[in-house]
Amino acid sequence: MPARQLPRWRRAFAEAVGSGLLVTAIVGSGAAASRLTPDDVGAQLAYHSIAVAIALAVLIAVFLPVSGAHLNPVVTVLAWWRERRAPGAAADAGCYLAAQFAGGSAGAVVANVMFELPTVALSSTARTGVGQWVGEVVATAGLVLVIGALSRTGRTGAIPLAVGGWIGAAIWFTASAAFANPAVTVGRVFTDSFAGIAPAAAPAFIAAQFGGALLGAALVRLWWPDRSSSRKERHVRT
Amino acid sequence: MPARQLPRWRRAFAEAVGSGLLVTAIVGSGAAASRLTPDDVGAQLAYHSIAVAIALAVLIAVFLPVSGAHLNPVVTVLAWWRERRAPGAAADAGCYLAAQFAGGSAGAVVANVMFELPTVALSSTARTGVGQWVGEVVATAGLVLVIGALSRTGRTGAIPLAVGGWIGAAIWFTASAAFANPAVTVGRVFTDSFAGIAPAAAPAFIAAQFGGALLGAALVRLWWPDRSSSRKERHVRT
Amino acid sequence: MPARQLPRWRRAFAEAVGSGLLVTAIVGSGAAASRLTPDDVGAQLAYHSIAVAIALAVLIAVFLPVSGAHLNPVVTVLAWWRERRAPGAAADAGCYLAAQFAGGSAGAVVANVMFELPTVALSSTARTGVGQWVGEVVATAGLVLVIGALSRTGRTGAIPLAVGGWIGAAIWFTASAAFANPAVTVGRVFTDSFAGIAPAAAPAFIAAQFGGALLGAALVRLWWPDRSSSRKERHVRT
Amino acid sequence: MPARQLPRWRRAFAEAVGSGLLVTAIVGSGAAASRLTPDDVGAQLAYHSIAVAIALAVLIAVFLPVSGAHLNPVVTVLAWWRERRAPGAAADAGCYLAAQFAGGSAGAVVANVMFELPTVALSSTARTGVGQWVGEVVATAGLVLVIGALSRTGRTGAIPLAVGGWIGAAIWFTASAAFANPAVTVGRVFTDSFAGIAPAAAPAFIAAQFGGALLGAALVRLWWPDRSSSRKERHVRT
Repeated sequence: MPARQLPRWRRAFAEAVGSGLLVTAIVGSGAAASRLTPDDVGAQLAYHSIAVAIALAVLIAVFLPVSGAHLNPVVTVLAWWRERRAPGAAADAGCYLAAQFAGGSAGAVVANVMFELPTVALSSTARTGVGQWVGEVVATAGLVLVIGALSRTGRTGAIPLAVGGWIGAAIWFTASAAFANPAVTVGRVFTDSFAGIAPAAAPAFIAAQFGGALLGAALVRLWWPDRSSSRKERHVRT
Repeated sequence: MPARQLPRWRRAFAEAVGSGLLVTAIVGSGAAASRLTPDDVGAQLAYHSIAVAIALAVLIAVFLPVSGAHLNPVVTVLAWWRERRAPGAAADAGCYLAAQFAGGSAGAVVANVMFELPTVALSSTARTGVGQWVGEVVATAGLVLVIGALSRTGRTGAIPLAVGGWIGAAIWFTASAAFANPAVTVGRVFTDSFAGIAPAAAPAFIAAQFGGALLGAALVRLWWPDRSSSRKERHVRT
Repeated sequence: MPARQLPRWRRAFAEAVGSGLLVTAIVGSGAAASRLTPDDVGAQLAYHSIAVAIALAVLIAVFLPVSGAHLNPVVTVLAWWRERRAPGAAADAGCYLAAQFAGGSAGAVVANVMFELPTVALSSTARTGVGQWVGEVVATAGLVLVIGALSRTGRTGAIPLAVGGWIGAAIWFTASAAFANPAVTVGRVFTDSFAGIAPAAAPAFIAAQFGGALLGAALVRLWWPDRSSSRKERHVRT
Repeated sequence: MPARQLPRWRRAFAEAVGSGLLVTAIVGSGAAASRLTPDDVGAQLAYHSIAVAIALAVLIAVFLPVSGAHLNPVVTVLAWWRERRAPGAAADAGCYLAAQFAGGSAGAVVANVMFELPTVALSSTARTGVGQWVGEVVATAGLVLVIGALSRTGRTGAIPLAVGGWIGAAIWFTASAAFANPAVTVGRVFTDSFAGIAPAAAPAFIAAQFGGALLGAALVRLWWPDRSSSRKERHVRT
């Protein structure tokens, strides 16, 4: 956290609102796309992916100086590990995680209300198979690598566009549509629409995401082995 | 207003031209899209949303150092509230509002002329329902949050892309296509084409927009409570 | 021209290559789009407009420090008027104009060769009517306003994206597909494909473009009346 | 290489991972697009081109401070020629080239696995003809020109977006879909899907790419003749 350190609850609330708006953007754009172009799955994914990439970039830009704009449990867990000896690191991480999962789920509800879908529903979209799990590993490893590369070289200002871009592209080039985020995965359980994921499919996705995060963190360490080079980053992310 | 403070009428004229070109872009791109791809509503919204997002970003970049590039009555009203004790704040706000509504309506006429539609017509597109009103609240709250977050952290240069991006994405993920702007809403009453909104539907949209603006302003205050941190912003926005 | 002033012929050659690649991108993307999606004019314009906007932005970024990246006779004529008392201004402008028209026409030929169209052909696409001429006025006035606003406020680095974005959006929201460039208009005469324009239609387009340029220049003068504020600009543009 | 010079194998490994993820993005997005929208070749190329452009930009941003983010043998060969008298230049270039070809091929395999295609297959897509070879010359010459122009004027930070944008646009406006990269060309041999290229077609593509690279290098030399002006660049690219 830079300059003004806000009280923990305000930062956690930022994580909740940010994760919520992200899931609203994901579920809402999927609902709009599938309603407006019902017969063309490719076009649906195109409209959805562009809206998601841009919304993610804007939300990160907004919340970066408030909470570090994690908006993603894998980012919070990795940040906790890096800062685990700092006072309050565990409490920060715990509050962030709770906020991300609660916010993400609430965001799905908001989208359901806007598009007059059942307010809360469990998704029936099975998403499974080795190809998709490899997809989550690739997408999440890349996400962690992008964040690490830019924050360890003092290019924090480029993180919003780069992360939004990475996810937007990975929605296409991975076979899993690049969830890459456990809180988003849980939120997407609560809508039975385009962007949903069946509850039974979520655990494997989340496991693959954490696997990818470890892989990404190992790559960051390989190319930025010098802890001191990340001093700037610590100032920005607390 | 930075450095060179222009006379009030020149700044207000900038708001009129900017709001006008914005509505021209909105109505024109909608007319082009629905004419070229008459049977595919999804594609129409896609082409329209990308053109609108980019045009909005460019117009904000152009007018930011002239008038603050409000181009939106909710932004002007919030700016007036913040500056209400400064001399001339009320007169500034009044002129800006008049310019935005007049310019926005003229912009619809220009688009109607270009696309050989009736020069002035009232839209027959009913846009109504709780889902759409929630959409306007979400879109406008997010808009105010984006502007507040970036201007209070000295990132004014990122406002054009972030605001254009937010609106472009929200056109998809809200159920109302993210008008998020009372002057644009009024302008869009005067075209009976893709982007129009029936006169009877406009008041509820505008009310929801002001509701969203209040919500957004409350969030900005929550995360940037320190007035002094917004000094930079005051220099940039008059 | 900044720092290193290159000999005139090298700068003019940059204008030729830049204008040529721009027309290659315009004609080539149109040919590809109409060939791959023959029955969907909306999709054709979408693919074409995105490719053109990006290519234009990249080309301006490349040639800005070489020749000022005019790539457009209306920009060169306005620059000449501003610098008309500087030694060599007329010779510079003359060479730039010749290079732009020759390069633009050659660029169409390159695209014709790539897409196995007749190497040189006159377009049969009539583009005419008040709506389209108003479109050219709006597109070109906006173009001149964007360039003027950014260069007079020291934001030269934002010109590539803003100009590319403006043209890309205006391709949709004007009824004329935003040629906004006499050299491009002439180049597009020499291909009988998606992006072509019939020789008989070109003069009115070019006249409307110069009309729009005057309007844009008047707006720039209204909002940046102080000549001294454009000192920085002179350094950047020769 | 800036500041911290990493050991050669770590930099070469970055080239391998970067080239691999690039080919994964190319092959994966093509497979997704052709699967989701089987009957619309234009839409397939659109979804593919946007994903590729963005992925390329993000990967360059990530690897620029590690290995210089060549990710392309023509860039490595030109860099070797420029630095040929520096100690270790040949070893650097050799390792980079091996890494790019190996990584690119592995990236195709990863995409094949994700999309449940044959793990390794030779493409049957013939890509040939003068139009396509001219396309590769234009795309690669432009690529080298973009990199040269930005790095020789101290705008390294703009390279990711400009290169991604150039390739994304050139996918449309060249007749060859802008491979512009020998390692990517070889990688794409190993998938029998949308983005593949038959082994017999690859040599001519690669020859055209090196031809275009020479042309681009000549243009860079024409407009930035002064070696001393590239001092900054040397610091960034080693």
